[in-house]
Amino acid sequence: MSEGYRVGDYLLDRIAEFGVTDVFGVPGDYNLAFMEIIDENPKVNWIGTANELNASYAADAYARARGLSVMVTTYGVGELSAINGTAGSYAEYAPVLHIVGAPRTWLQKEQKVLHHSLGDGQFDHFLNMARHVTIAQAKLTAQNAAAEIDRVIREVVLESRPGYIMLPADVAEAEIYRPAGPLQGIEKTSSPDAVQAFKEAARDHLQGKTVAVLADLIVDRLDATEELHSLLEHTTIPYSTCAWGKSLVDESSPRFAGIYAGAASDERARAAVEDAEVLLKLGVIFNDSITAGFTHEIDPNRVISVDSGVASVGEVMFAPIAMRDSIQTLVELAQESEWKPQPLAPIPNQKTPEVDPDAPLTQEQLWALLAEGCTRGQTVIADQGTSFYGIAPHSLPTNSLFIGQPQWGSIGYTLPATLGAALARPDHRAVLLIGDGSAQLTLQELGTILREGLTPFIVLVNNDGYTVERAIRGPEKKYNDIQPYNWQKVLETFGGTPENCVSLKATTRRELEEALKIATETQDKLVFLEAVTGRLDYPPLLQALANSAK
Amino acid sequence: MSEGYRVGDYLLDRIAEFGVTDVFGVPGDYNLAFMEIIDENPKVNWIGTANELNASYAADAYARARGLSVMVTTYGVGELSAINGTAGSYAEYAPVLHIVGAPRTWLQKEQKVLHHSLGDGQFDHFLNMARHVTIAQAKLTAQNAAAEIDRVIREVVLESRPGYIMLPADVAEAEIYRPAGPLQGIEKTSSPDAVQAFKEAARDHLQGKTVAVLADLIVDRLDATEELHSLLEHTTIPYSTCAWGKSLVDESSPRFAGIYAGAASDERARAAVEDAEVLLKLGVIFNDSITAGFTHEIDPNRVISVDSGVASVGEVMFAPIAMRDSIQTLVELAQESEWKPQPLAPIPNQKTPEVDPDAPLTQEQLWALLAEGCTRGQTVIADQGTSFYGIAPHSLPTNSLFIGQPQWGSIGYTLPATLGAALARPDHRAVLLIGDGSAQLTLQELGTILREGLTPFIVLVNNDGYTVERAIRGPEKKYNDIQPYNWQKVLETFGGTPENCVSLKATTRRELEEALKIATETQDKLVFLEAVTGRLDYPPLLQALANSAK
Repeated sequence: MSEGYRVGDYLLDRIAEFGVTDVFGVPGDYNLAFMEIIDENPKVNWIGTANELNASYAADAYARARGLSVMVTTYGVGELSAINGTAGSYAEYAPVLHIVGAPRTWLQKEQKVLHHSLGDGQFDHFLNMARHVTIAQAKLTAQNAAAEIDRVIREVVLESRPGYIMLPADVAEAEIYRPAGPLQGIEKTSSPDAVQAFKEAARDHLQGKTVAVLADLIVDRLDATEELHSLLEHTTIPYSTCAWGKSLVDESSPRFAGIYAGAASDERARAAVEDAEVLLKLGVIFNDSITAGFTHEIDPNRVISVDSGVASVGEVMFAPIAMRDSIQTLVELAQESEWKPQPLAPIPNQKTPEVDPDAPLTQEQLWALLAEGCTRGQTVIADQGTSFYGIAPHSLPTNSLFIGQPQWGSIGYTLPATLGAALARPDHRAVLLIGDGSAQLTLQELGTILREGLTPFIVLVNNDGYTVERAIRGPEKKYNDIQPYNWQKVLETFGGTPENCVSLKATTRRELEEALKIATETQDKLVFLEAVTGRLDYPPLLQALANSAK
Repeated sequence: MSEGYRVGDYLLDRIAEFGVTDVFGVPGDYNLAFMEIIDENPKVNWIGTANELNASYAADAYARARGLSVMVTTYGVGELSAINGTAGSYAEYAPVLHIVGAPRTWLQKEQKVLHHSLGDGQFDHFLNMARHVTIAQAKLTAQNAAAEIDRVIREVVLESRPGYIMLPADVAEAEIYRPAGPLQGIEKTSSPDAVQAFKEAARDHLQGKTVAVLADLIVDRLDATEELHSLLEHTTIPYSTCAWGKSLVDESSPRFAGIYAGAASDERARAAVEDAEVLLKLGVIFNDSITAGFTHEIDPNRVISVDSGVASVGEVMFAPIAMRDSIQTLVELAQESEWKPQPLAPIPNQKTPEVDPDAPLTQEQLWALLAEGCTRGQTVIADQGTSFYGIAPHSLPTNSLFIGQPQWGSIGYTLPATLGAALARPDHRAVLLIGDGSAQLTLQELGTILREGLTPFIVLVNNDGYTVERAIRGPEKKYNDIQPYNWQKVLETFGGTPENCVSLKATTRRELEEALKIATETQDKLVFLEAVTGRLDYPPLLQALANSAK
């Protein structure tokens, strides 16, 4: 044994290899042994959140930005409070390692009736629940700890999906050898024969045809963004992303066709994607949220598709090929001979309508001004409702990171996600776009954001209830109303002072412009802006989706 | 088909049979069809909560008070956010029916990649997760709806544990026949032979010996409280409860021996329970929380035990016997011949120490004064930390309902539970006892309490962090600190006004006495009291438990 070196130390050393410097969670008696080890470790900071669901959301965003994140909760009550967030990380390919402090091994073996258990002497219920929403699971013992920690972290990193480790209090403190070196086996591999066959089939398919790209978030989640950028640099073809993958590509380029959203797309994006003779479909999973209810019309025979571990040309599949190898293969083909770009319509000249700057603020004005107000390299986090569909059609500057959740769509996710994103990207201001209906679910995390001295710009769209639900059904029903909060008092309640935050409100275009100016000038404080819009004023993309969901 | 009568109507009619008049939850697109049916139904009120975990906590408390409660969430994100609360209802025997609005049947059949799913075209993951923490589950179709609704509700009521119903949007609206009559088969049955054999064995066992009772919460959860009270009326034996079952019996009687908590008991309670020649152990599950870490010393050969579906005399078991039949059998034996009471020491004369009324408030003063301040028939809800262990040793008046959670012990549970309890028992003021560490997890439910015009008395013990964790480990560690909130601003933030609430603060005994006076006089408003105590001032029972958990 390495003198005084414990399983808990091993775990922390392993995660530090992946650039994790912050660990999220809530203390509880079953994890206090591990909490002490975290407290002693100079490589990681403990970020205690207000509750466990919020920890899981913060960890999810941190994982998207850093490539791995870690959440620690206690057994039963803690882990189950977080499990919705973990399911979201699974659905959205965020590599979060969930470490659950558990009762001591002998107490579990003797099937004691312990608090935080169901009282039946069984201790595997929650691990078995976690199997549905994690890619790998382990129940640590002093004997298996090193091997199991390595296995779970490897799978989490390779698959970009969450993992689960049950860490009994005694095992956290058990002595163990230090790792011999960095974790091995975390590179995805491809079959050279499959790659060669894919290359030939794709070459034939591309021959003489017009080409366009539709890329989406999975390219980023499976670490193939560099290859995608290389592909775009080596060609002149137009490209689009779905709303999920916003900020994946340079949205300021004239080659950017806009966001593709099935029948809800602008004609320019629709034509680029649907009319191309060959569509390179890279890391795209069509779901109802991003296609306005499956209204995409794309002939599979025209598609070269690159997905997790597999590439395909028309209906012929080639596997195993890692996503980055598939895209790199396309780069090589583009270097061999020039591709014919699918013609792209010019950007229509949109005349900004004259508006009275003192008339009530509209959604249309709000999102256009907010998109303009985003400077280079910010992290933009948009809640899956009015905010997501409002900002989606607007271009973000290069080097932005956009965080949304159109697959899992858990309202309230983004407020704690802002905590995670701000910690993971300290050099990029986090900009949160959230509605009042969503913010009520998780608003206590404002306290943690203030405690950590973070300085995001938070835009709360106060439109008096669940607008996304109103758009679908029951616009005037009581169940879509919420209790009106006094949003101007919120920061003060959670520990805000004039030294660490500014609270603003805008009800007109003029007030919004002034608020954005203050937000830009005030980079050293949390800036909170309550933007008031009409309760039945929906962004067009949300209306299109809502119609399809009716 | 009954004209215009739908599966959703059938569900609501069935739950109304059990006295459910309020349904808790959060709307989401998959449950909006059912939301409209709820909205149209005159028998039930919709109580929209700020998030789903809070709905599950509110429903749990409502179920304890009413015998059944109903929670409605949306698929995936909503149900998983609530699942910790459901697990608590399972562990603590609260009959909560969870109805999950799900994607339309044809979308599930076609394995579509839908939002709020994991994106794999599979729709049973969350139902399978719920199997671990519910007693019955059903996936409704138009064909099976009536039978499955009846089956699940029957099991929930019989076992006093939560159930799960997946309700696809189309099924909620499918037409169906009305029920022919009230739900049948909800009475627990016993084997007459088993009852007879138990009676004979118990009679022999009791012969000439001293007797005492130790009862706990399960008596109430399995609907045998009347029988317990009858047993106490027909005898002169002393009785005790564990902390879980507080308020189950008349705590003001001289026969009440106090709360039994293993080695942490007062000597009077310890002697009554541990030294009795026969101990009637009724609905007691010994766990670590209520026995100061399994320090109870009770010879199983001296015990007559009554549990769910089974009774036992020493090590001989008799089943199936419903709990109420077991206890009724004991009543009959007590009527046959008088039992010898286990001698009970007199209540020690506790001299209240002289205190400076303007010195900083202590935990000891706080709980004694709060217990005194509880008038007849309140609902007292104590969070599983300082508050629970603080109030547990103090007697509550008859007709109080005490709600705690020593088995599941999910911190933050009690604030939304106060919403549920106040709605379920409108004629009894709800008194919430909660710490600042716990309240941060769920405080947004204050908004719902205000919106519904409820008037609980909320005592927030501000002792600057996770005191229950400090008592166990790391009293001065950063991870047991929390962000200090401005508690005096909280009500205003969530919609409080001078018309609907009063916010008070006490830092000394004198201020506490004044605050309690105002609380008693102000029955028509929510009264919020921030009681400030020292961060390392632990109630004795908590210290004893913490020592055992170290």
